[in-house]
Amino acid sequence: MDKVLVFAKKLLKEKIDKNSIVIDATAGNGYDSLFLAKSAAKKVYAFDVQDMAIENTKKLLEDNDLLEKVEVIKDGHQNVDLYVKEDIKAVVFNLGYLPNSDHAVTTLGQTTKEALEKMLRLLEVGGIVVMVIYWGHDEGKIEKNIVEDYSRGLNQKYYQVLSYEFINQINNAPFIIAIEKIKEMY
Amino acid sequence: MDKVLVFAKKLLKEKIDKNSIVIDATAGNGYDSLFLAKSAAKKVYAFDVQDMAIENTKKLLEDNDLLEKVEVIKDGHQNVDLYVKEDIKAVVFNLGYLPNSDHAVTTLGQTTKEALEKMLRLLEVGGIVVMVIYWGHDEGKIEKNIVEDYSRGLNQKYYQVLSYEFINQINNAPFIIAIEKIKEMY
Repeated sequence: MDKVLVFAKKLLKEKIDKNSIVIDATAGNGYDSLFLAKSAAKKVYAFDVQDMAIENTKKLLEDNDLLEKVEVIKDGHQNVDLYVKEDIKAVVFNLGYLPNSDHAVTTLGQTTKEALEKMLRLLEVGGIVVMVIYWGHDEGKIEKNIVEDYSRGLNQKYYQVLSYEFINQINNAPFIIAIEKIKEMY
Repeated sequence: MDKVLVFAKKLLKEKIDKNSIVIDATAGNGYDSLFLAKSAAKKVYAFDVQDMAIENTKKLLEDNDLLEKVEVIKDGHQNVDLYVKEDIKAVVFNLGYLPNSDHAVTTLGQTTKEALEKMLRLLEVGGIVVMVIYWGHDEGKIEKNIVEDYSRGLNQKYYQVLSYEFINQINNAPFIIAIEKIKEMY
């Protein structure tokens, strides 16, 4: 059985082709941006609000000669519509805080939901949003509930919502919610 | 994203090799028995309590020239230990009633749990039990709770328990619980 991060990458990879515009909604230390930049995707957008995340992501991409494929944006993912005008094929969120930072800055349920709504509008039919949900911290528990409720409520005529979770873990292990658009709503 | 039955088969297939003893715990109309017989597995055991299921399974295997690889047993899966003495690599359960039958005979939470406990004891390290849980009927709801509670309670030192579920479906859609043994308990 694939671990959560391995499965998240499989879900993304099977969707991305050479015409794909893709988004790393939580650049963090840049590992997902690098993964997306290494994929077949035509262009990657990467969002983060923290200077350290922007620096680390740019450096990682530069070290791999892939910075030119990625637009690294220092702004909240809920403002995605200000920067991305194209249809998108895949989005990845790693919800929680920046690893190796002070944990004071975390993604927040309300802005995550706002970002998610906008991503789904930009998403092409057949495209996917993959969220890896870390919820060991207090804000994470609130965010988990908001994201789960919102995702469960999506109309099954337009979206397929998959939960991939190891359910016998004692320490609030991260899990995946993945949303695929199967039909345009309007 | 793989549909539930496709994903169940992937989980089984990546575990089964030419030395594998495998079990179809709910033979039904024989489709999983046929799938297992077609895999690399050395031997398949198939259980069912209904005459029609036994007949249909045998016929399907015969039509595919694979009956000799399969021992089809008319008895409840909770009696697995009376028939299977070897270590096993993979087990599949399709919980619910026999499709195209009268729906009066269904798998039952208590015997399913008993069967599951025995299967886990027979399972080798690295082996997997995949359950596809249909719970649209009344008994199915009870069974779902029993199986979920039991699976969640398995010690993460010895077992990994994965839930794979489409969570925005309105009609109690079937989902997967898969249990991999990662270490022997005793």
